[in-house]
Amino acid sequence: MSKVIDGKAVAAAVLEECRTEVESLKADGITPGLAVVLVGEDPASQVYVGSKVRTCGDLGIYSRKIELPTETTQEELLKVVADLNADPAIHGILVQSPPPKHIDEEAVVRALDPRKDVDGFHPENVAKLALEDPTGFVPCTPAGCMRLLKEAGVETSGANAVVIGRSMIVGKPMALLLMARGVDATVTVAHSRSKDLAGICREADILVAAVGRPEMVKADWVKEGAVVIDVGINRVDDASKKRGYRLTGDVAYEECAEKASAITPVPGGVGPMTIAMLMKNTLQSARQLG
Amino acid sequence: MSKVIDGKAVAAAVLEECRTEVESLKADGITPGLAVVLVGEDPASQVYVGSKVRTCGDLGIYSRKIELPTETTQEELLKVVADLNADPAIHGILVQSPPPKHIDEEAVVRALDPRKDVDGFHPENVAKLALEDPTGFVPCTPAGCMRLLKEAGVETSGANAVVIGRSMIVGKPMALLLMARGVDATVTVAHSRSKDLAGICREADILVAAVGRPEMVKADWVKEGAVVIDVGINRVDDASKKRGYRLTGDVAYEECAEKASAITPVPGGVGPMTIAMLMKNTLQSARQLG
Repeated sequence: MSKVIDGKAVAAAVLEECRTEVESLKADGITPGLAVVLVGEDPASQVYVGSKVRTCGDLGIYSRKIELPTETTQEELLKVVADLNADPAIHGILVQSPPPKHIDEEAVVRALDPRKDVDGFHPENVAKLALEDPTGFVPCTPAGCMRLLKEAGVETSGANAVVIGRSMIVGKPMALLLMARGVDATVTVAHSRSKDLAGICREADILVAAVGRPEMVKADWVKEGAVVIDVGINRVDDASKKRGYRLTGDVAYEECAEKASAITPVPGGVGPMTIAMLMKNTLQSARQLG
Repeated sequence: MSKVIDGKAVAAAVLEECRTEVESLKADGITPGLAVVLVGEDPASQVYVGSKVRTCGDLGIYSRKIELPTETTQEELLKVVADLNADPAIHGILVQSPPPKHIDEEAVVRALDPRKDVDGFHPENVAKLALEDPTGFVPCTPAGCMRLLKEAGVETSGANAVVIGRSMIVGKPMALLLMARGVDATVTVAHSRSKDLAGICREADILVAAVGRPEMVKADWVKEGAVVIDVGINRVDDASKKRGYRLTGDVAYEECAEKASAITPVPGGVGPMTIAMLMKNTLQSARQLG
């Protein structure tokens, strides 16, 4: 019998904390500001950017949406980033991923002032995460997963945590967060090359799936009573849906829910946390930059 | 029946490669240079520094030993670092650890030009390791462990690797190296808070002990046929020795050697690799800086 971890409810609680912190910042004379840069016309990116800007508005965070045409050059984009780095009204800068193919995304991330890199992808923030320096920005998705574990009352100290996936967006930062002092999990990072992935996962007290394969994690991968965090968001063809597809995670939800003591659904689990943690990072930056 | 991994022999082979590369650099008009800064009079540090300088001499690497008194201020030390950063004859800079207590070691590391940080402790090199960027410097001890695995012909892809210890000097970088693309191990980082450490270690195809507890790893922690890398160097009181102690690793060598397919001794295992990899990093820097 499993307890559903309600990402929408936890995200709402995080956003309430943010609202309070925005008031506190404003009382100190600081209006937090987030700039979101979108290059090109990817429809999914437009939805994400719209949602971020709307959430800023809800919370009283100043936001600036900068939409640039697909043919924007690397140099032009770097100039926009440099201007935002220098702008005291802006505390967080986010360049929506993925940019058009001719843009060197890594170079753009490196060009960000790391103190405004609220996505947590700049090398300086990667290092701070590894070095357990709390002044850095933690990438929003793994930060959201950690918050869900906390809200679900999961004991991490000494627990066996297994992370499937080793990306710098989720897998590696998640592993670093789980092994950090004070969290103290025993962390295994598994991936597509791992032998006996099912057997490795079956040892997990905490199982985090961030691999991008629809419903890969089956019930017999899950230990009785484990906590399952599903980071995957995959489109699967579904003729019964009007739009022709449905969204599914990396976990076969129904069957795994039978065994887990707690599990995140998709949608409504990790997804809503990402924007909430982005807001939190923006406020952290506003507080730090003052 | 286990095969002893001979760190002295592998280190000698690495140093031979270095000798060739020094000649090649000199043919290109580059004399590689390493500066070693020692603050205070710690006898062990004096031995390490002497050994590094001597190895440079053996290979034809220019070295500069800078000995500063214990009472050197942070500001004076940072000035020395700044001068070395700016000195084109110097490609690698190493400030011997530990400095006297009044020195902020982290600030000194951050003051190094990351392109000359041949210890691999600067945040920029930490990030490059996590991001799998080969232009960064990998800390010498875990780099040495990886080379030992390679020379011993150990298959890492899909192997279960367990690292005991989560320091930024050994544990975390070792984990990142083992999980990197092309190495492809399934990596578990365990530590003093881990539950059933023995059981976790028994699952390891590759077991790396970097915890600093003499002979903690016993035979029943080791799977039959596992590869055991012992990073520990501990002093244990021993009245039968003239100096009153003996050196021992984190692994109970004799009994674990019965079960391992390959194992590093202490001394003569990982230890000799550290200086060899420092030389390799210095030459990488000389090549990159040109």
